Amino acid sequence: MAKLNALYAQSGGVTAVINATAAGIIETARKHKNRIGKVFAAHNGILGALREELFDTSRESPSAIAALRHTPGGAFGTCRYKLKGIEENRAEYERLIQVFAAHNIGYLFYNGGGDSADTSHKISQIGAELGYALVCIGVPKTVDNDLAVTDVSPGFGSVAKYVAVSILEASLDVRSMAETSTKVFILEVMGRHAGWIAAAGGLAQQKTGDPPHIILFPEIAFDQQAFLKKVGQAVKRQGYCSIVVSEGARYPDGRFLANAGTRDAFGHAQLGGVAPVLAAMVKDELGYKYHWAVADYLQRSARHIASKTDLDQSYAVGKAAVQYALKGMNAVMPVIERLSDKPYRWRVRPAALSKLANREKKVPRKFITRDGFGITEPCRRYLRPLIQGEAYPPYKDGLPRYVTLKNQLVAKKLKPWK
Amino acid sequence: MAKLNALYAQSGGVTAVINATAAGIIETARKHKNRIGKVFAAHNGILGALREELFDTSRESPSAIAALRHTPGGAFGTCRYKLKGIEENRAEYERLIQVFAAHNIGYLFYNGGGDSADTSHKISQIGAELGYALVCIGVPKTVDNDLAVTDVSPGFGSVAKYVAVSILEASLDVRSMAETSTKVFILEVMGRHAGWIAAAGGLAQQKTGDPPHIILFPEIAFDQQAFLKKVGQAVKRQGYCSIVVSEGARYPDGRFLANAGTRDAFGHAQLGGVAPVLAAMVKDELGYKYHWAVADYLQRSARHIASKTDLDQSYAVGKAAVQYALKGMNAVMPVIERLSDKPYRWRVRPAALSKLANREKKVPRKFITRDGFGITEPCRRYLRPLIQGEAYPPYKDGLPRYVTLKNQLVAKKLKPWK
Repeated sequence: MAKLNALYAQSGGVTAVINATAAGIIETARKHKNRIGKVFAAHNGILGALREELFDTSRESPSAIAALRHTPGGAFGTCRYKLKGIEENRAEYERLIQVFAAHNIGYLFYNGGGDSADTSHKISQIGAELGYALVCIGVPKTVDNDLAVTDVSPGFGSVAKYVAVSILEASLDVRSMAETSTKVFILEVMGRHAGWIAAAGGLAQQKTGDPPHIILFPEIAFDQQAFLKKVGQAVKRQGYCSIVVSEGARYPDGRFLANAGTRDAFGHAQLGGVAPVLAAMVKDELGYKYHWAVADYLQRSARHIASKTDLDQSYAVGKAAVQYALKGMNAVMPVIERLSDKPYRWRVRPAALSKLANREKKVPRKFITRDGFGITEPCRRYLRPLIQGEAYPPYKDGLPRYVTLKNQLVAKKLKPWK
Repeated sequence: MAKLNALYAQSGGVTAVINATAAGIIETARKHKNRIGKVFAAHNGILGALREELFDTSRESPSAIAALRHTPGGAFGTCRYKLKGIEENRAEYERLIQVFAAHNIGYLFYNGGGDSADTSHKISQIGAELGYALVCIGVPKTVDNDLAVTDVSPGFGSVAKYVAVSILEASLDVRSMAETSTKVFILEVMGRHAGWIAAAGGLAQQKTGDPPHIILFPEIAFDQQAFLKKVGQAVKRQGYCSIVVSEGARYPDGRFLANAGTRDAFGHAQLGGVAPVLAAMVKDELGYKYHWAVADYLQRSARHIASKTDLDQSYAVGKAAVQYALKGMNAVMPVIERLSDKPYRWRVRPAALSKLANREKKVPRKFITRDGFGITEPCRRYLRPLIQGEAYPPYKDGLPRYVTLKNQLVAKKLKPWK
């Protein structure tokens, strides 16, 4: 069997542990040098593949690759760039195949969310159509946890842990001085269409009355009167009210509570700022002093408080991706299958990309309390294992020692793209 | 010598390690049971002292008190309530002395910032005037690091570490996908009048070109043209621009960039929201896609990433406070004295409360680069030791195990206050 090279590309928003998946892929490939030649990494995701900007990861030391395990962000760069349908833009797909052919690339590992599963699937189709032998493996990643089929999306467990820890800590702060100061605290978290990240805040609650007192999900239409009533109740009963709100919280007519009006490359509305909107509502209607926080990128890059479970799973899907490729399994994605809640047991299994592409998994109604403001016990059972374990990065001089790779480009063999 | 009781009270905003100071006081007092009777803790700070709401800390187990070391927030509650001048409100001071007399309190440990040093000082004066033997010790605490005399304020090192780690991590995120997505990231941090917390973000920068590329201090009048020029340069050179802004950033005429218009109990303007103001400026003038985060209470309650140095110092000032009280030193505060930068060596020494009251220590001009957008090497030398060391709390089920005390009130002996 001929020795083929591999290409690894990251896609879309990064996570605290996406580089652990890269480490899983590169380290596993290095163990199969008889089968896989070099692992190239695309500079800035699929754009780098189109432009023939390929990093040669064989130039990186074993310790540098190992350090990816504890380094957040995307080590090779990533992009928001959605390939159009094959009919609309055949040239892009053909260009990709040309680049793969020029560099003897027989394996593609495409690390992303639902859009990326779709792209991987299309690339595998065009490869087959053009008669180019390409094994195309999607590798799951998204903080939003909205990927279908897989029990959990690698990257989610760490942001879930960050949000649960943060709302627990901030609530202790607010509780301390609610009598004379802030009575309502609002933490805005990510999750455009699915409220998984907001739901994770609910793990901070150990018993009735504990914070967070309110969670606002994109899945539940915002009811201002019910919300304000609930805030007032919490302040009366506990002296303060701690709230976690998803950036995707929306009115019954579908409008986001916060809408910056701009759109990203995928055409999604760019959000941010629902927390101050709620704060103003609380101030105007109830008169309580408020504070609000917007975690934004802090939450999805917080490698310092990553979940060990998430880290292990992120590495495991990378490792499995290479193993599947070596078995010649095409157009699949390694996904996490849950075997039991307690003790938590899981394994990695392959799923067809066609089953994952462009499907969104929202928080099911049975995971949300009847009043729409909290999470249920089944939701806790689902979420709890995902934040288990700490996996601290090494520190030097008080700061985590994150690695920056050499990222040496290989010589181009084709004409520039476009 | 008669055995007198002690009263501990927390004041103003809490920190990730203020409870470590409480542990230092209570544990040290317990070692001197022949000299100190009970340690009471005021419920919600000085308000609890006025209302005779005193928790009996002798009802708490040694393990619960030890757990204060790793629990953020204020374990007994705190308040924003500034005692007026003695001339204006003599009744309040006299009430305090009545409460102290009723409960045989001979030692007051008042844990707060500059306002609290002033209050402690006044209480010690009124005690002397009324002939009530009271040893009054101020114990330093403030995330703002604006206390005079002490080299550093306990509580600051941990927020400094949080901000440095957070901007480091978020910048890796932004860098990963700047080509097609966010080019400008803005992190808003606390620091109303002093830019120490914003300055700490500069520790993330290891070499030229590293993030953060811009720091905005309250000490430097905001120059919009220079700021936008600097943003543009960073995006051109590094591909992205990472910014840390103090909530207290202000225009040359003194107006805050963000001004919610409300004021707290001390009459300070309540801020929040300078990050979106800057983001809009960047969007309007330069057209870059932006993201912003507001850390708010997350930063000052982040015990999960506390500085070991800060934790040790917070405990040490509590311990020293009791030792000073037993020596009969009145109207003093244990402060941190730096003996050397590298290796970092420090000790605790007493300072007169009169020297600390109502004085604010700002970031000196020589700690800020000439262009006003960064920190200098002397500033790094000062800040670097303060974030050294990790002091993780214990975890259970993926979350830190923070303690909630029993907080049992002692029987009242006086008529209700007011």
